[in-house]
Amino acid sequence: MIDKKSKLYSCWLSYSNIKNSNYKEYLENVLVSCKSEIIDSAVSELGRVFKEICDSKKTQAIYENEKDIKDISYIKLEKNQDESLVNDGYKIKHEIINGKNECISISAKNDNGILYGVFALLHLLEQNKQLEGIEIVDNPEKDLRLINHWDNGDGTIERGFAGASVLFESCRNKDIMKEVMDEIGGITATRPALRKAFNDDYKVASDLDRVNDYARMLSSIGINGVIINNTNVHEAETHLMDSKIDIVKNISDIFDKWGIKTYLSINFAAPITLKDLDTSDPLDERVKEWWNKKVQYMYKVIPNLGGFMVKADSEGRPGPFTYERDHADGANMLGEALAPYGGILIWRCFVYNCKQDWRDHSIDRAKAAYDCFNPLDGQFLDNVYLQIKNGPLDFQVREPVSPLFGTMDKTNKLLELQITQEYTGQQKHVCYLIPMWKEVLNTQTYANGNIESNVAKRVSGINAIVNVGNDENWTGHFLAQANLYGYGRLAWNSDITSEAIAEEWITLTLGNNPVVMKNVKDILMNSWEAYEKYTSPLGIGWMVSPGHHYGPDVDGYEFSPWGTYHRADCKGVGIDRTMETGTGYSGQYNEPIKSKYNDLESCPDELLLFFHHVQYTHVLKTGKTVIQHIYDTHFEGFEIIEKFIHKWNELKDIIDEKVYEQVLERLNIQLDSARDWRDQVNTYFYRMSGIQDEKGRKIY
Amino acid sequence: MIDKKSKLYSCWLSYSNIKNSNYKEYLENVLVSCKSEIIDSAVSELGRVFKEICDSKKTQAIYENEKDIKDISYIKLEKNQDESLVNDGYKIKHEIINGKNECISISAKNDNGILYGVFALLHLLEQNKQLEGIEIVDNPEKDLRLINHWDNGDGTIERGFAGASVLFESCRNKDIMKEVMDEIGGITATRPALRKAFNDDYKVASDLDRVNDYARMLSSIGINGVIINNTNVHEAETHLMDSKIDIVKNISDIFDKWGIKTYLSINFAAPITLKDLDTSDPLDERVKEWWNKKVQYMYKVIPNLGGFMVKADSEGRPGPFTYERDHADGANMLGEALAPYGGILIWRCFVYNCKQDWRDHSIDRAKAAYDCFNPLDGQFLDNVYLQIKNGPLDFQVREPVSPLFGTMDKTNKLLELQITQEYTGQQKHVCYLIPMWKEVLNTQTYANGNIESNVAKRVSGINAIVNVGNDENWTGHFLAQANLYGYGRLAWNSDITSEAIAEEWITLTLGNNPVVMKNVKDILMNSWEAYEKYTSPLGIGWMVSPGHHYGPDVDGYEFSPWGTYHRADCKGVGIDRTMETGTGYSGQYNEPIKSKYNDLESCPDELLLFFHHVQYTHVLKTGKTVIQHIYDTHFEGFEIIEKFIHKWNELKDIIDEKVYEQVLERLNIQLDSARDWRDQVNTYFYRMSGIQDEKGRKIY
Repeated sequence: MIDKKSKLYSCWLSYSNIKNSNYKEYLENVLVSCKSEIIDSAVSELGRVFKEICDSKKTQAIYENEKDIKDISYIKLEKNQDESLVNDGYKIKHEIINGKNECISISAKNDNGILYGVFALLHLLEQNKQLEGIEIVDNPEKDLRLINHWDNGDGTIERGFAGASVLFESCRNKDIMKEVMDEIGGITATRPALRKAFNDDYKVASDLDRVNDYARMLSSIGINGVIINNTNVHEAETHLMDSKIDIVKNISDIFDKWGIKTYLSINFAAPITLKDLDTSDPLDERVKEWWNKKVQYMYKVIPNLGGFMVKADSEGRPGPFTYERDHADGANMLGEALAPYGGILIWRCFVYNCKQDWRDHSIDRAKAAYDCFNPLDGQFLDNVYLQIKNGPLDFQVREPVSPLFGTMDKTNKLLELQITQEYTGQQKHVCYLIPMWKEVLNTQTYANGNIESNVAKRVSGINAIVNVGNDENWTGHFLAQANLYGYGRLAWNSDITSEAIAEEWITLTLGNNPVVMKNVKDILMNSWEAYEKYTSPLGIGWMVSPGHHYGPDVDGYEFSPWGTYHRADCKGVGIDRTMETGTGYSGQYNEPIKSKYNDLESCPDELLLFFHHVQYTHVLKTGKTVIQHIYDTHFEGFEIIEKFIHKWNELKDIIDEKVYEQVLERLNIQLDSARDWRDQVNTYFYRMSGIQDEKGRKIY
Repeated sequence: MIDKKSKLYSCWLSYSNIKNSNYKEYLENVLVSCKSEIIDSAVSELGRVFKEICDSKKTQAIYENEKDIKDISYIKLEKNQDESLVNDGYKIKHEIINGKNECISISAKNDNGILYGVFALLHLLEQNKQLEGIEIVDNPEKDLRLINHWDNGDGTIERGFAGASVLFESCRNKDIMKEVMDEIGGITATRPALRKAFNDDYKVASDLDRVNDYARMLSSIGINGVIINNTNVHEAETHLMDSKIDIVKNISDIFDKWGIKTYLSINFAAPITLKDLDTSDPLDERVKEWWNKKVQYMYKVIPNLGGFMVKADSEGRPGPFTYERDHADGANMLGEALAPYGGILIWRCFVYNCKQDWRDHSIDRAKAAYDCFNPLDGQFLDNVYLQIKNGPLDFQVREPVSPLFGTMDKTNKLLELQITQEYTGQQKHVCYLIPMWKEVLNTQTYANGNIESNVAKRVSGINAIVNVGNDENWTGHFLAQANLYGYGRLAWNSDITSEAIAEEWITLTLGNNPVVMKNVKDILMNSWEAYEKYTSPLGIGWMVSPGHHYGPDVDGYEFSPWGTYHRADCKGVGIDRTMETGTGYSGQYNEPIKSKYNDLESCPDELLLFFHHVQYTHVLKTGKTVIQHIYDTHFEGFEIIEKFIHKWNELKDIIDEKVYEQVLERLNIQLDSARDWRDQVNTYFYRMSGIQDEKGRKIY
């Protein structure tokens, strides 16, 4: 049974310190000079905190006119056309009215801005910040701050590690579906028969209150759009545009209240799947007409629909290549249908040959997206957005930034991140991803030779695959909540430091005890590095168990068709992606990155094996040989997790007991897994190279 | 849609040549001097052939008295207490009655014998054998000739590669369940959540005619017992003793008619699973009483029940170890309950630590069964049979024979074989297993120093996991029918040669065209060697993809808890199982095998890496180095499959078109897979050793 009052469930919205705030009486009175469903949500959030958290018996008073307010402190929500504000931005200002009444005004250009301002105020109260004389203007960096669900209709989640879907349900028991997901490692796209066997029927989640709580959470971190279903759209989910549109409607009704637009992942072959046409050729007039009518119908039912997302010609999904059309043809056909309603079309660039022959060293999956999309720059409609994964492969613990961010100036681009920890410990391991994402966002692309063109500036928005499921704590690992929180914060403002985000999250979630702050921050801030150390070395990636992607398997992808190799032999390891002797991938970057990566001397250690095949005795910038680096980092990574457990143990009796126990359990699982990684990777390279560890540690 | 008149379906019972037989008129008249359900089946089989195959409009005449028969040729079925016959054996004799009537008499001590004699006669007719003056006595070598289904209630089959169960059905569509099985690679035991999710309900197969055809097939090769459900008995199947006993009853009613006893795999923890007791301690009186009552109940419903099979304390199954009892305690408790009804208890010796640490070289899974059971010799009841897999590990393409066969003189032993090709190509590859089984049966154990104690003589019976499912051709690969046929023949008589069995099967199934005979025999007889060549070398085994066990993955089991390693490094490969420096496994054998395996000089090449860790440059008896042997065999194995395809292509337009097309499709799949094996294994060892192929062939 899920306890919705628990620390596990309430995340960063528990507001448990507000009852001690000097400003809590402000919450009693709210002046609202504008009216909308979203403003209602903002007011209800204030009221909820006042009533539930502050344990007040008085109902919150709401005024429509300043004159009605006498001798009290209050909160004012109002529209503000101030030039300092952009859409969704807000201003929080402390004012003395008539020389005695104190007022905190929250103002914005639009309803979303006011709602975000309310959450910001509550966070300030929770963090015990001084409000007298405060004047904050906070604008989001990007218009599109999106969350992407890989949820299937039957309630399973592709790469879901925190229980079954919060949005969809099959007629089957949720707990069984969670067990099934655990058993098949959250893989559903490659299990069509299983999904068919389960797909008797499905419906919207029965716990719509939880959907509402989820929307509140997302709204509180500034998310303004959610793609509600898996990017791999099979027959069952194709009906979300059709006989099952009510499900979308139910979800979007809730999301709308919190300023979140609902988007749908669609099946490019829908006209065929829904048995209306025998083609989905994007240049066929019947196909265009079909989509126009379909979109018209959908907007009639869901006027606030955000648009569509498409994965086409990728990993078995249909696409324009079937009809010898290009991706601009495919995307524009859908963009055109959506344009009249203000909808947008998100088109994923995750297109590559997933049936590669490992014997063929000339093909390079890393090059695929650039090769496919760069020639099409300038051909996409204004409401089409190309969504590009942070790296050229697939959410490894370390990849270079995709070269597509440094090009395609005439095309709208979105950055795609993965909050769900597919390759970073699957929410069994703590791995705080904010520092990685910060690195991505701050990477200079040198587009057009401009040294101010980092990834954050090159994209119109961010979309991330979420890590949420029906587990009581939402994210499986309690500490993984910090990744969701931090994603929202970064999508809003990529300048906040990883450390500041960690501090905010810890305060809002676990309170402000200094030991808690110190130890949890230490764990979070060192977790990405630790994970990198005990897993695959020097940017080579993969080495995971195929399919479910949990745990080590050095050769797991070495002889597979997926284009993901390490090419280790008795002499050396790494992929030669240079222009002279390798696949030429480094040539996709702008200078000076191109030369930096291409040149063995200047290539950063952490990406060495991504770009170069070197001998085990090659000396890194650290002065260590590659083989010794492998041994050392693997021993170190394991030891860091031992230290995490020690630090966590110090929190016993200081933090919520269930949180303590849950995290401890997962840290112990992580320790075991880190030991497996350490010993398997070290043993593999020791057996392969025959080179002893300088320090004589135990390798098997 | 399944065509029950097709070549695919009819297997070796198509009798398509009988219509050209000189003796077909014998079939018109049958004299039956004894009466039983089984004799009825024998008569009906003769009648079926006469009516359907010989296209006769006349119904077959059945007489009860020789005096009624005048001026005709006929078949006589009668009991015979001749000392030359043992139970189930039969005599076929051609006689001239009254100087003019010709009669073929089929006689036996029991009903089963007469039934087997009828099938034998039909096979003689089909093979166009001369019958004048014939007198054959054919006795089975063993009393227990068993088939083991790994079918689950929901219709999935553990390690099933030919469609869903022919015995059980879930309420779900059979085709979907087949797709599910293909998708998860026939693995169900390690998928309890999936199975739970599917287990809404299940029932006996709706196509009981097919169950009847299946029973005919088994009976025609002398099988007299079938364990109908998976050895891994989960909650759902525990109810086969209880609320779902009707399913067992339905199946056994059909099997009974064909002289086949029905056995059940049972759950050792059934008293707990069925919520009657809180223990299944075999020495607890309440537990004994529970089983006594349960067995009493079952025999009341199914008086002809054969008994139980148990997998205990193995791979997660419960067993006596839970209560600190030994396996004799567990087995005898059940044996005692079954004894009053003539039931037997089959207890599997597949007991080992499946959570081994790969780092620990001192544990050896190969030793486990001997260590566990040998000390218990003499303690088992007379109706308890220990079932021992042919090798000490798990049905690899090459293993030494289990040392348990050479010991435990005071215990009933059964040999366990695997017809379903879990590790030998999963019925996508042709792999005729009869030569392997012949080797096993003919292996001398030197028990008590006796040089006449081969495995065949050391066991009371054989049990084999069947390769049958709902596919039209029963076995997925059409040529895999030969393994089922041959298993029955070998269980009856281990002296028949592999070649003779192949010839019989080809004639009965594909007719007697000499090109068909030559080419198919060539394919069958070379297929095991080919499979061994392109897969794992020199007896080391494994190197398969974990879980589903299809296709190469050299390191797939190298760092796993399953106890199945190769220990390859840059210098050498193999497991040291010697007594001096290794795990001591070789010491479990009787002399002179013990020394033969233990000594590097005398150890046969094909088992070298099973017993010894050697350098790649070690020279084999063939004069080749180990590494060159690896390269050569892998190239050769692939080339043999190319030749198979060539030979098969020569049969186009000579054999049934569907058979031709189906087998060709699978041969092409096999060729692709053999290429993968060749290149992955060669590449792995080339990268690891750094040693070039002497012949300079392409290694990646």
